[in-house]
Amino acid sequence: MKETPQQAVLRKLFDRIETLGTISSDTPGLTRVFLSKEMDIASRLIQSWMSNAGLIASVDRMQNVVGSWPAETAHPPAIHIGSHYDTVINAGKYDGPLGVLLSIAAVETLRLEGYEPKHPINVAAFCDEEGVRFRSTFLGSSFFCGTFDTRFLDNVDDAGNSMRSLLELRGFDTSSFNQGTPLIGKDDLFLEAHIEQGPILERLNLSLGVVSGIAAQTRIHVTITGESGHAGTTPLDLRRDALTTAAEMILAVEASFADNPNARATVGQIKNYPNATNAIPGEVEFMIDLRNPVTAGLNQMRDTLLNKLDEIAARRTTEFKAEILQTVDSITCDSNVQQALSKALAKHQERVTTFTSGAGHDALKIAQTCRTGMMFVRCRNGLSHHPDEYCSPKDIEVALAAWVDTLRELDQNFPTPEKANA
Amino acid sequence: MKETPQQAVLRKLFDRIETLGTISSDTPGLTRVFLSKEMDIASRLIQSWMSNAGLIASVDRMQNVVGSWPAETAHPPAIHIGSHYDTVINAGKYDGPLGVLLSIAAVETLRLEGYEPKHPINVAAFCDEEGVRFRSTFLGSSFFCGTFDTRFLDNVDDAGNSMRSLLELRGFDTSSFNQGTPLIGKDDLFLEAHIEQGPILERLNLSLGVVSGIAAQTRIHVTITGESGHAGTTPLDLRRDALTTAAEMILAVEASFADNPNARATVGQIKNYPNATNAIPGEVEFMIDLRNPVTAGLNQMRDTLLNKLDEIAARRTTEFKAEILQTVDSITCDSNVQQALSKALAKHQERVTTFTSGAGHDALKIAQTCRTGMMFVRCRNGLSHHPDEYCSPKDIEVALAAWVDTLRELDQNFPTPEKANA
Repeated sequence: MKETPQQAVLRKLFDRIETLGTISSDTPGLTRVFLSKEMDIASRLIQSWMSNAGLIASVDRMQNVVGSWPAETAHPPAIHIGSHYDTVINAGKYDGPLGVLLSIAAVETLRLEGYEPKHPINVAAFCDEEGVRFRSTFLGSSFFCGTFDTRFLDNVDDAGNSMRSLLELRGFDTSSFNQGTPLIGKDDLFLEAHIEQGPILERLNLSLGVVSGIAAQTRIHVTITGESGHAGTTPLDLRRDALTTAAEMILAVEASFADNPNARATVGQIKNYPNATNAIPGEVEFMIDLRNPVTAGLNQMRDTLLNKLDEIAARRTTEFKAEILQTVDSITCDSNVQQALSKALAKHQERVTTFTSGAGHDALKIAQTCRTGMMFVRCRNGLSHHPDEYCSPKDIEVALAAWVDTLRELDQNFPTPEKANA
Repeated sequence: MKETPQQAVLRKLFDRIETLGTISSDTPGLTRVFLSKEMDIASRLIQSWMSNAGLIASVDRMQNVVGSWPAETAHPPAIHIGSHYDTVINAGKYDGPLGVLLSIAAVETLRLEGYEPKHPINVAAFCDEEGVRFRSTFLGSSFFCGTFDTRFLDNVDDAGNSMRSLLELRGFDTSSFNQGTPLIGKDDLFLEAHIEQGPILERLNLSLGVVSGIAAQTRIHVTITGESGHAGTTPLDLRRDALTTAAEMILAVEASFADNPNARATVGQIKNYPNATNAIPGEVEFMIDLRNPVTAGLNQMRDTLLNKLDEIAARRTTEFKAEILQTVDSITCDSNVQQALSKALAKHQERVTTFTSGAGHDALKIAQTCRTGMMFVRCRNGLSHHPDEYCSPKDIEVALAAWVDTLRELDQNFPTPEKANA
């Protein structure tokens, strides 16, 4: 039986997920970080798929890829849909790319129908949401909104390269960053589809969910300075071991959310110096990732934890420095967009559930600029940031159908802004 | 006033310590690891200094440098003196090189006197005592004794290079390793001078000390396997965090010697995967360094600790693997050599103290082959394996005088072996 055009869209979506999942700087595993050669390869693939879908593809200075629907009938405000295409280290292939590729496939589907959009529609693939390389997230979506903080240009990666130097090697004048007109304006809408990265949809036996908002999050860079020395001679009372201090702090971070099932606290990254078997560690750096459904809860949790860490360092006569790198307030997704999503999802599954995201997403950053909405797709065992991350083909098929319906609905009935324009 | 030849020997000794202290693969700090370019540079410098001192210098396949006193009057057994010239990461300039350079200066001094040795005298500079690169110590001195374990040839450094591949790149046939006649035989003596790397001599206000023996030591490589996942979503009850498990274990290692002032237990090296801020750590590796004055005490301490770590891993539902990489039994220095050292030291300071070394040294390995003895030189604050490691010029001057006296005494009155030859 011959493949229908609709079936071909779905097959290409599955193929593209697999293809992007092979573009990695490490094997085995999937690792694709900002301003890498692998991101350039992925960028060219995404541009070619956008072109095949009838979009006009381009890439901006930050490696963001944008595909614009060339519709003569369309009038602002615009609808932007998409997600990011960078990954964490040793990642899965759905976190980010699924939202980008679903959005391309949604446009392909609508174009097959001969749909003529009323509003400009852009598919976005953001260059850095995870913040692996420069320890700062949402670089792509903030640039897209004109809210990119140019101080981050001087962040330095593990190899000692600043973001600025890498961008300038690519021929860009970093002094003029953020001076153009951003693609996303305050009257626009941004819609993101993403894997859930948590266990809720699986527990409820649902393919899709509507996101009501995104938890507040902060990242804290901790430096502990003790004193290195010979492991075989230095007695315990003369030691100022930075790693045993860090160990006690890591357990305090874990304990900080034991009584709050909606909060999260994680030490994911650690560096130890000099990191030699027979030398007492003289300095340790680690990163704390904190999440809380509301900003006030996050702030309280952070202050309590930092006081506790300060006590530990003082008791162990090590120096303790905590730098709050980034704090993002919690957001609420636009109620009209939530309604449109609920209506679309109800067509494709028995029930609709709406919940807060513990994970941060580009929509969190973009909500500072315009109204946003998000759809979650179930993932196996709630597992993400791991090579075993998995979404079933059936769930992806349902997600595409709902995503097409959502995009059509919002384009046809573009919601009136909740606040009057200035 | 013109410099005397004796003053020139001392000045050259100080200059050489400074010069070797600049040959580093990293700046700032001093790092010189096995089979590196910097070790080749240091090797050539040491050979030239040996030649200037009237020694016949050569370098073996392992990068060990040997300077032989060309004395026609000398008859076996031989006396070997020296230490190592590799360093830890971010090291001080005295740990190792001081013993090598004191030994070259001792020969220079004796030759100035017109001394004619009764026994062959070799000055040795060993290529790898610290074991930084391939996580296995005493590579140089074991090769020198013919006890090098060729299984270590397949150890791999952080860049993925095996020791074998690096030696073969240098043109050596690694299949024939250990088949020649070793330089050190069972009837010989080995004498090592070294900084104390501990606080005892400073507390007693003495420049030098006699070493009675060296503590037993072992290195254990621990791997903890949990499960990676998204830091923002995974609830505490679903986490199998390898880093919080490691943190609890690191505190258990520290606690394991809190009640034993003569033992030491240290986690100096740790690696975390995937080591990304927003990913729950899925795997952690770390190294435990254990020391105890006697082998039986070490074994008991190790077993108790490993049981404790096993409990922690089980409670946290992570997998735990412990590999004992290397165990070196405690040794006792030869009593005749201790006497000769005590006699020499008594000429240069008010009192003589004798104590066990908590740090391992080449003498520990060489004691498996022949009788050994060690002299310690005071270091500031007991600090070692650190850029601030320091020995005063006055202490070094006293050390040289005592080292010359010890060498002359043992050459004149070569001690009868305590055990009959086979």
